Amino acid sequence: MPKKTDNAAAFVTEITPRSQDFSRWYLDVVRRAELADYSPVKGCMVIRPYGYAIWELLRDALDRRFKATGHVNAYFPLFIPEGLLHKEAEHVEGFAPQVAYVTIGGGEVLEEKLVVRPTSEAIIGTMYAKWVQSWRDLPILINQWANVVRWEKVTRPFLRTTEFLWQEGHTAHETEAEAEEETLRILALYREVAEQELAMPVVPGRKTDSERFAGALRTYSIEALMGDGRALQAGTSHNLGQNFAKAFEIQFQARDKSLQHVWGTSWGVSTRLIGGVIMTHGDDSGLILPPRVAPHQVVIVPIPRGNWQETVLPKARALRDELTAAGIRVMLDDRDSYTPGWKFAEWELRGVPVRVEIGPRDIEQGQVVMVRRDTREKATVPMSELGKRIGPVLEDIQQGLLARARQFRDEHTTHVETYEQFKEVMEGRPGFIVAPWCGSAACEAQIKAETQATIRNLPLGEQRSAGKCVKCGGAAVTEAYFAKAY
Amino acid sequence: MPKKTDNAAAFVTEITPRSQDFSRWYLDVVRRAELADYSPVKGCMVIRPYGYAIWELLRDALDRRFKATGHVNAYFPLFIPEGLLHKEAEHVEGFAPQVAYVTIGGGEVLEEKLVVRPTSEAIIGTMYAKWVQSWRDLPILINQWANVVRWEKVTRPFLRTTEFLWQEGHTAHETEAEAEEETLRILALYREVAEQELAMPVVPGRKTDSERFAGALRTYSIEALMGDGRALQAGTSHNLGQNFAKAFEIQFQARDKSLQHVWGTSWGVSTRLIGGVIMTHGDDSGLILPPRVAPHQVVIVPIPRGNWQETVLPKARALRDELTAAGIRVMLDDRDSYTPGWKFAEWELRGVPVRVEIGPRDIEQGQVVMVRRDTREKATVPMSELGKRIGPVLEDIQQGLLARARQFRDEHTTHVETYEQFKEVMEGRPGFIVAPWCGSAACEAQIKAETQATIRNLPLGEQRSAGKCVKCGGAAVTEAYFAKAY
Repeated sequence: MPKKTDNAAAFVTEITPRSQDFSRWYLDVVRRAELADYSPVKGCMVIRPYGYAIWELLRDALDRRFKATGHVNAYFPLFIPEGLLHKEAEHVEGFAPQVAYVTIGGGEVLEEKLVVRPTSEAIIGTMYAKWVQSWRDLPILINQWANVVRWEKVTRPFLRTTEFLWQEGHTAHETEAEAEEETLRILALYREVAEQELAMPVVPGRKTDSERFAGALRTYSIEALMGDGRALQAGTSHNLGQNFAKAFEIQFQARDKSLQHVWGTSWGVSTRLIGGVIMTHGDDSGLILPPRVAPHQVVIVPIPRGNWQETVLPKARALRDELTAAGIRVMLDDRDSYTPGWKFAEWELRGVPVRVEIGPRDIEQGQVVMVRRDTREKATVPMSELGKRIGPVLEDIQQGLLARARQFRDEHTTHVETYEQFKEVMEGRPGFIVAPWCGSAACEAQIKAETQATIRNLPLGEQRSAGKCVKCGGAAVTEAYFAKAY
Repeated sequence: MPKKTDNAAAFVTEITPRSQDFSRWYLDVVRRAELADYSPVKGCMVIRPYGYAIWELLRDALDRRFKATGHVNAYFPLFIPEGLLHKEAEHVEGFAPQVAYVTIGGGEVLEEKLVVRPTSEAIIGTMYAKWVQSWRDLPILINQWANVVRWEKVTRPFLRTTEFLWQEGHTAHETEAEAEEETLRILALYREVAEQELAMPVVPGRKTDSERFAGALRTYSIEALMGDGRALQAGTSHNLGQNFAKAFEIQFQARDKSLQHVWGTSWGVSTRLIGGVIMTHGDDSGLILPPRVAPHQVVIVPIPRGNWQETVLPKARALRDELTAAGIRVMLDDRDSYTPGWKFAEWELRGVPVRVEIGPRDIEQGQVVMVRRDTREKATVPMSELGKRIGPVLEDIQQGLLARARQFRDEHTTHVETYEQFKEVMEGRPGFIVAPWCGSAACEAQIKAETQATIRNLPLGEQRSAGKCVKCGGAAVTEAYFAKAY
């Protein structure tokens, strides 16, 4: 917690301006807004209470929807015997370089090394093989909230850390069609949460083979565009086909009495989404939180003049209680060791959607001052009306942030036909590029090598005539979304 | 999922009777009620959806109370560099034999081994040293929901597993008095949750020095009595004094400008509580769940006679929707591949508090049959009244289970004055023994060696004149609760 200062400006300038150095701005916001902190463990962060409160709101928003679509939660072991990870060949190849191994337990060297889960297909597949006998046991629709570990060389809080928190859904179905339906249902659910809760517009689509999850048949993703024009993969949903079912022998007696392998899916989003929120909405003053995931939706700052503790404070407390009773998350900042100016700057930095100021003169006039974080718009509101005004204002901020982010995304999405245009955009004002692609991994790789842009995903559904590949000029099979990515 | 059978009795007898072999009964219930399953990882279990749903309800009940008492959640790294664990001498001595080490990450042997957290005092203390500067930064009241790992030789689902889920609170205070107050506040909170939510009466008290948490000044616990007369330590709350503050240099500038070490507490309960619920309330037919932590509080079983799918099923669905809208957790078991008798037995085994049966004749007469799991009492209830009858019945079951468990506990608590009586009780009809104790670790150890009974805890508050030590006959300093324990 920073110490008392009368100079709010000095406090705010501790943050690198976003326009000057986006990457440093991001780290400054994470640290100064007390979202996360570095830990003594290489590549691992501490999620501080303010950051964790965002995660709790996001988790609840997801969990509600998982349950409404028939999913249940369960918990599987953190450790995976090395041999299990090796059962699915592509899967182990994808993850082996990134795993952490437990080799000693209870004072003894283990006979078989244990992998700290980088993802849980292997352990869950093993259990499903025990649990599934008949088509009557299907579908299995299980989700897990858990920590996972993937050894990373370069890390950044929330975006890429060795340990992170996530949810991973793992389902098993009777038919291929059901598995594909589930994969896309979850993709739509992720999109809904990103847009409705985080006010973060996303592009849903299918990953190319080179970006497919290790062991999956098809991977879908939602991709968001950050304030610096780089894309963030914000969630993935995999149709596993029968790959894991065959590797782990998950078989069932079908309706026609034949023995079949189940069709699987897996899908996940993580604390990375918090990084997405920061980079979608923040500005030079710091964080801007969408109300639905803001730990404090409203902060009340009493103005300490005269005998304010007898006059202003009781009124401020009554307002807090009134708003709290109306279901609003309110913080009353009644600390007497900080000035109002300092508090204004601090809560702006921490992204609280609405600030309410109340001083002796306001009380005389039966009013408060309400300030929006997104537009900085100030309004004088009769105290008696605050309760019914706040809800619509929060909703307006939520929708306004989404609209603003969508406009930014659209303004930074360029359709190009030629590789010259492609490079020009990527060098000048990066964002999404939509361009025709021939489907070859070679073109994809060359574009990446030359421009750092990767194919984020391919549009879903019917393709309109796609023209000529932006790289090789051959017949295009699809359009693709390209971007430099986190 | 067990397969269709018309013989409900055969199904139920798959469980070892509780009276015959309590330990096997416990394992049978855990497996057959689908609470948990063995995993391919030694000592680690899978918490299945039904067991995890109980954990979610318990977690929410705790989390609400933590937040209402000013605590916030955060998340700290899973890994602790070995050197940090060694900073507090007693702490490392207590935990070192039980830890799992990560020695390889990202394909390389690590320079410093990483401990998979057995508890988080070391990593959290390190962070608090960064965060605390002034008395204004205190208190810090942080809780973490996490998995922890303690290598165990003998494991039992929920009660003792290598990995388990828990919450661990870690707080830092200005004064010793505040830390003690927090320690006891949480002990009272744990007692409230155990009794009000789990209907599991507990004895709160202080641990002896030999049972103290490694590194604590004082450890308090709540102790419950299981159906076989053995005690279960159900939660602990530690006053850490300044031990960790000194080891991790958590210092602050006090109000008088002097530099002081903070006073710490830590406290936790775990998935072990689910084991406590099973062993407190279950009977020969299986689990009995207190309504507040029952994933399904009511199961509706339609009786398939005649054209029941046109007549009974729509009515059953309407009842389900009505009860759900009233905030009751309802399961409609409309599977057509199982008989009603099979379903009755299954949901009894899974401990659902209330069963509602509805058949064609019931519909003609505008009624349903309501059966309580705890007393097996059957009642015919007008369909129109079910909605308002269910709530009070669930509350009655909740209170009834607590009263029954309390009566069992009281009937199995014996006050003894002599060691002869002590051994007689322990050999005959075990439970809690309350006896005077001189305070010496030698007597405590001898009693344990000779009877397997340990001191569970010492009563809080003023002691009445305690008499002579039950073991050595010396002057007793306190009464103590003894029991064989899990």
